[in-house]
Amino acid sequence: MTDTFAIALIQHACSDALADNLAAVEKAVREAAARGAQVICLQELCLNRYFCSAEDASFFSLAEPADGPLVSRIQRLAAELSVVVVFPFFERRGAGVYHNSAAIIDADGELLGMYRKMHIPDDPLYYEKFYFTPGDSDGESSGYRVFETRFAKLGVLICWDQWYPEAARITSLLGAEIIFYPTAIGWHPAEKKEHGLNQWSAWQTIQRGHAIANGIYIAAANRIGYEPALGTDGIEFFGRSFVSDPFGQIVAEASGEKPEIVIVECSRRKMEGIRQNWPFFRDRRIDSYMPIARRWLAGDY
Amino acid sequence: MTDTFAIALIQHACSDALADNLAAVEKAVREAAARGAQVICLQELCLNRYFCSAEDASFFSLAEPADGPLVSRIQRLAAELSVVVVFPFFERRGAGVYHNSAAIIDADGELLGMYRKMHIPDDPLYYEKFYFTPGDSDGESSGYRVFETRFAKLGVLICWDQWYPEAARITSLLGAEIIFYPTAIGWHPAEKKEHGLNQWSAWQTIQRGHAIANGIYIAAANRIGYEPALGTDGIEFFGRSFVSDPFGQIVAEASGEKPEIVIVECSRRKMEGIRQNWPFFRDRRIDSYMPIARRWLAGDY
Repeated sequence: MTDTFAIALIQHACSDALADNLAAVEKAVREAAARGAQVICLQELCLNRYFCSAEDASFFSLAEPADGPLVSRIQRLAAELSVVVVFPFFERRGAGVYHNSAAIIDADGELLGMYRKMHIPDDPLYYEKFYFTPGDSDGESSGYRVFETRFAKLGVLICWDQWYPEAARITSLLGAEIIFYPTAIGWHPAEKKEHGLNQWSAWQTIQRGHAIANGIYIAAANRIGYEPALGTDGIEFFGRSFVSDPFGQIVAEASGEKPEIVIVECSRRKMEGIRQNWPFFRDRRIDSYMPIARRWLAGDY
Repeated sequence: MTDTFAIALIQHACSDALADNLAAVEKAVREAAARGAQVICLQELCLNRYFCSAEDASFFSLAEPADGPLVSRIQRLAAELSVVVVFPFFERRGAGVYHNSAAIIDADGELLGMYRKMHIPDDPLYYEKFYFTPGDSDGESSGYRVFETRFAKLGVLICWDQWYPEAARITSLLGAEIIFYPTAIGWHPAEKKEHGLNQWSAWQTIQRGHAIANGIYIAAANRIGYEPALGTDGIEFFGRSFVSDPFGQIVAEASGEKPEIVIVECSRRKMEGIRQNWPFFRDRRIDSYMPIARRWLAGDY
């Protein structure tokens, strides 16, 4: 096994025009591959405007099956370029079962499987519970997963998942060397001045915390751009895609405004060295963690 | 219930002279109370030099039972000043059963119970596995706990525990409003220049992450001072005791060199507001977290 693998995060804005978004994604994937990236992660729902800012059943028509033409097209691209691609898209799994998913495509174009977002938010302008069935928590092809790709063992979690240490922990225990977080997080413009910096800081900090707790690379790809939403002042997506090393140090970070490709060389030797010097896995009290699967532990009736 | 409660963290250096350490602790507790603190947290093993830098059975003589004269003395002090005290000390629970503990003393002097460090490190100059039996993981008076004191519902975790999201999560689910982390963390002088800043940053970042994940106040009291250790270049404890609000913002932080009392007013309204706007507890996938109680999940034989 080689020491290093090179990853790329792609951050961009999205419009209503699928063809334009697809062209931008393909161009960026080609550029990332040309610059040496071996594992390329796109942002959450990377071909769509963030339609969840309204509850509108007509948007279900944007969904695609995992064996549909869009995923196939990205598979062909991955095979052509010999790169692994994490491709987040709006998945139609069956009639009335839609997911916020990522297809994990190996460097020969094989579809290794899907990660389906486990934690679904529902907040003003992030009405995801209307659209997305949560990921399964049992069965072979469901829940937290690790994918053995040609270049790295990778885990994928999506956006709201990033606030849950349990998700990062289980994905790490499954043997991931890196966790990708395709993301769509932004500011309500009216809140930005007072809370914007703190919100961005909390978002980055908790993910650095996952890197430290698990001795693992963390890489978040977030969209940019202002997207209007009827009757509101819309969302300003804040970009700042970043990579944290396994001790929580930011090793690369994009701007908040521009489309960017963030490329980082990850080192297995560095990861193993950190885990040897800060041996948190050694001392886990697995005999004491069962209460974590409870909803609440304080004075219930 | 009032909106606020005032906490104090006390950071200081320790010598071999128990009487001196005790005098410093009592003076600081009196000063913190005079300045309005209602809940006062001392640092890990606050009456001792960090003896774990060597494995020496003679140090077991430093241990005291929970109903011994030292805890009783702090109980009388708490009652006199009408303050809650988190008092970390080396506990002799029985012959051959020693713990790295904290006594939680209510504002009337009552001993509410003990927290016994669950995760025990063993690293160069931190030979804690030699001294400390890990905290229990079952039974009424053991494991992760929350204490309903006169001024706040508080949880206590100790030092190495701070690297484990599971411990912070379970303590939060138990209803804690704040988690105190009595600590003894420092630098190996030979590593400080290259790694010191990153080590301090990881220490603070992961605890800010616990604050964010759980919407809870986090308060860490760490010792200062250089302590020699035979045949080595000793440990330089880095202080920097701090309080994070429930969204991960540092609201107070001590220096790395001086004895200090850090006083912060915590707001239940602020905590509840953060949890309402970032409702992470609402969306936990408790149906999916059972694998967290496993040692490792990747390709076992």
